[in-house]
Amino acid sequence: MITSKDNQQLKTIRKLLQKRRDGLFVAEGEDLVEAAAANGWEPQLLLRAGEDVEPDLLPSSLGSGTRVVGVYRERWSEPGGDLSVYLHGVHDPGNVGTIVRSAHALADGPVILGPDCADPYSPKAIRATMGSIFARPPAQAAFEELSGTTVALERGAGGPLAELDAGPPVVLCLGAERSGLPEAVRQAASAVAHIPLRPDGPDSLNVAMAATVALYERNRMARHG
Amino acid sequence: MITSKDNQQLKTIRKLLQKRRDGLFVAEGEDLVEAAAANGWEPQLLLRAGEDVEPDLLPSSLGSGTRVVGVYRERWSEPGGDLSVYLHGVHDPGNVGTIVRSAHALADGPVILGPDCADPYSPKAIRATMGSIFARPPAQAAFEELSGTTVALERGAGGPLAELDAGPPVVLCLGAERSGLPEAVRQAASAVAHIPLRPDGPDSLNVAMAATVALYERNRMARHG
Repeated sequence: MITSKDNQQLKTIRKLLQKRRDGLFVAEGEDLVEAAAANGWEPQLLLRAGEDVEPDLLPSSLGSGTRVVGVYRERWSEPGGDLSVYLHGVHDPGNVGTIVRSAHALADGPVILGPDCADPYSPKAIRATMGSIFARPPAQAAFEELSGTTVALERGAGGPLAELDAGPPVVLCLGAERSGLPEAVRQAASAVAHIPLRPDGPDSLNVAMAATVALYERNRMARHG
Repeated sequence: MITSKDNQQLKTIRKLLQKRRDGLFVAEGEDLVEAAAANGWEPQLLLRAGEDVEPDLLPSSLGSGTRVVGVYRERWSEPGGDLSVYLHGVHDPGNVGTIVRSAHALADGPVILGPDCADPYSPKAIRATMGSIFARPPAQAAFEELSGTTVALERGAGGPLAELDAGPPVVLCLGAERSGLPEAVRQAASAVAHIPLRPDGPDSLNVAMAATVALYERNRMARHG
């Protein structure tokens, strides 16, 4: 039982929570550690409060503390699948994590992270995946490396996504919350489409909402034509 | 120009950021204050960094600080509209705020808060609305007070929402992230439906994702039948 906060393992965890390095990351809490185990991820280090370490000493990025912490090595998928999502400049880790969860629920392909996206293995992003990151590690790729039908989702541009005639594989492409996709990506995409919004509403949906609606719509079309 | 942190107005703002009272709330940042003005909300108090107050003294719930802070009096809508959302036990203020934004984009009715929901006027919820809360203040009501077709959205229950034959007014009802809707609500709802997810995916979508997909689907049906 670790009883000193100067213990080397605790120092490692505290440092990783501050700044990731060497491809390692920290998963906090029973649910995430269980999701890791269920998907065959071996922890490099696993500490349980009250068993391996004095409860008060277990480091956590959560105000409320946690009962178990695991350290794992990050994994990356390759782009692929009949349906996947490409993100460009999505800075918010909560949004990135939520999209990983939605893609796990609604797509066979991974979330592909382009330039300037949040670290999907940061504590906030991992929490937002609710464990889906262990089932579906994201991919990393530039837009130019994508294959299949790339659909640029842009507010008010192109036709409604529900009317887009495009067979698989489809990669749904979404940009930053305010600036959207870079002009070069919009130009190079196979198609441009939008999610219809009310004219008296806001300019846009949150990017995680837009990605999830688009994933849902592609599923619905596959089921109902 | 306020130059002392002991100024009474600054104290008021700091207190409200800690704990809301008297129906007042704080909106932080240019975008939110502009959205308030655009929707005709008069601030009880408005302080701009560098004009009204020394920049370093302006209170903020954000680590990065802010350049303008307004204090406003909360407003509540009445339930209504052809399409609205009822939430039961949605604790996370980010989710509540995001759903307010999505409903503004995709529905004519408000978000109706049932028991045990996060305060939509907390700083985190307001930020997630991106200003939509000023265009569409939420409503407060018990499930029993709702009129129209109440659709209980439950993972795996009933038929797919896209196949639900229900005319307006429709109230989409969603429960807490883990426990879902209370049994009494599920029993009393006009219909039960689900959003189809992959069998190899997670149990559920994030509640804000589910609400937004459901709002999208009802819009799509109204457009395409």
